[in-house]
Amino acid sequence: LLESKNNELYQIKKLHFKDDGLNPTLSLKDRASVIACVKALENNNRTIACASTGNAASSLAGNAAKMGLKTVIFVPKRAPIGKLTQLLVFGANVIKVDGDYKKAFSLSKKAIEHFGWYNRNAAINPNLIEGKKTVALEIAEQLDFDVPDWVVVSVGDGCTIGGVYKGFYDLLQLNMIKKIPKILGVQALGCDPFYQAFINDKPLEETDEFTIADSIAVGIPRNPVKGLNAVKKSKGSYLVVSDEEIMKAMKLLAESEGIFAEPAASAAFAGFIKARSENLIKEEETVTVIITGNGLKDTKNALTILEEPVLLEDDLEELIRYFKKEKRG
Amino acid sequence: LLESKNNELYQIKKLHFKDDGLNPTLSLKDRASVIACVKALENNNRTIACASTGNAASSLAGNAAKMGLKTVIFVPKRAPIGKLTQLLVFGANVIKVDGDYKKAFSLSKKAIEHFGWYNRNAAINPNLIEGKKTVALEIAEQLDFDVPDWVVVSVGDGCTIGGVYKGFYDLLQLNMIKKIPKILGVQALGCDPFYQAFINDKPLEETDEFTIADSIAVGIPRNPVKGLNAVKKSKGSYLVVSDEEIMKAMKLLAESEGIFAEPAASAAFAGFIKARSENLIKEEETVTVIITGNGLKDTKNALTILEEPVLLEDDLEELIRYFKKEKRG
Repeated sequence: LLESKNNELYQIKKLHFKDDGLNPTLSLKDRASVIACVKALENNNRTIACASTGNAASSLAGNAAKMGLKTVIFVPKRAPIGKLTQLLVFGANVIKVDGDYKKAFSLSKKAIEHFGWYNRNAAINPNLIEGKKTVALEIAEQLDFDVPDWVVVSVGDGCTIGGVYKGFYDLLQLNMIKKIPKILGVQALGCDPFYQAFINDKPLEETDEFTIADSIAVGIPRNPVKGLNAVKKSKGSYLVVSDEEIMKAMKLLAESEGIFAEPAASAAFAGFIKARSENLIKEEETVTVIITGNGLKDTKNALTILEEPVLLEDDLEELIRYFKKEKRG
Repeated sequence: LLESKNNELYQIKKLHFKDDGLNPTLSLKDRASVIACVKALENNNRTIACASTGNAASSLAGNAAKMGLKTVIFVPKRAPIGKLTQLLVFGANVIKVDGDYKKAFSLSKKAIEHFGWYNRNAAINPNLIEGKKTVALEIAEQLDFDVPDWVVVSVGDGCTIGGVYKGFYDLLQLNMIKKIPKILGVQALGCDPFYQAFINDKPLEETDEFTIADSIAVGIPRNPVKGLNAVKKSKGSYLVVSDEEIMKAMKLLAESEGIFAEPAASAAFAGFIKARSENLIKEEETVTVIITGNGLKDTKNALTILEEPVLLEDDLEELIRYFKKEKRG
């Protein structure tokens, strides 16, 4: 847990970041994948399969490799190269499905039934949330069980936010914390089924998947009840942020906090910024933002907002002229 | 510290990995950069500069961002995109120098003198080794001060291996460990000034920088004495590995241990494999291999050894045919 020193900048009493981008395969999904591998071994199952936009898959591939299990991973066609590289290097059998996440999920379901593999799809497997909830347990522990007023997390399938809620719920039942933090679920403007269901108070409906934040580009979430309940029962809220807001938040987070987050993880920070500007989160409240994946997972999108560095000769005079012109240094 | 479960595969009594690829900016260099930032603040210096093949720079940029300091980073033209992305996203002033690391270092030296910036070049700054030595302190602590017979680390500038030695040296002076592990320094075949100096028992001479392991492609090491002493005084050895051995080791490390390491870090593991095959490290000895940087730092080289995944329709019959043909799953 990292405490921000920029409270004045964001106009907030206290802000922490839980950086799960430093987990073994650089995303929060490791918390669920470890459980999946252990459960597969308990079941005497040597092959685990899943459909994933990326992080669940690379996390499964890495953890399974460590435990000597085989993996079959179904990915949508657009999965960014950083994430595919991880899958392939960990030795997974990668099946690219011609289409979006929905297609990848559909084929994985049929294949898992046919071949009898262990199923790591968060939609189906009830054990995964037990892994994911550990992020809430750690946040509480690292704050000496004095939990923040708000916990902010980006939302795709709904399993992670469900896990966050479950962790705090369990701690409350054990009288280890005094309240469940309000949970702010952040979705991308171009893929916002939870947000739509929340503000219109109706069941989830399928949406498009138009966002650069590929890890939360889930048009048909597989955990609709868990994802909505986490926000409703914690008296939190849902919020949407645009791709532009996500990329601005990514830059701010890196420059101000030294945390490089992937777009889906930056969405959570963008949601925090927006919630402050709309006064949904109040200045006198305390907040923890969960960073769900590392920025090196997707350098392609990051590069679109970064300036190409200058190329100079090994010549001090040239450098001095450059700094004068650019007013840098 | 991760314990390998593949002792039989490698024919070794006990093998641990110290995975510094999970540090805040995903490399061992964070250990030195934190010290540099603290020392700059002590000096009332608001700008820190360095020349780096990548990891020292991205690490400095990230840590400086967190502490509110400015950075100017001189990089050689070939620095891989993953590392440049980190620098730029953390808000560093990046100066690409037309040439190799030697040119970048040369311009940084002149500029630091001219502008009076704080100097994070590991060659010049004696504090950095104090940060780097913490990797040895942690290895010892995590093994209950029963240190391994060998510690394996890849070598570029010579500062990191110097830090490894210094950490164990300090612990021995404090009577906290019984011996200093033998240190195996691993260099790339195409850039091996330490290896040449070691086997020929003569001072370091400049070499070419022909290797994919960019983080250790240092033709003129700036810590020749520290780098040689670490090996000589610990009664260890130097070894060279080819780029092919490095990439094979990268794949083996990922598939068997679930650790994705960048080429320079994989070089250490390749060195361990070679040292076992030559019986320089004996089967009955214990070993810790230091992984100095994360594989997502350089996906481009990793991709060269990975097979492109198959692209299929959402069609179970097509998938079944594929698995039959490929004998996978």
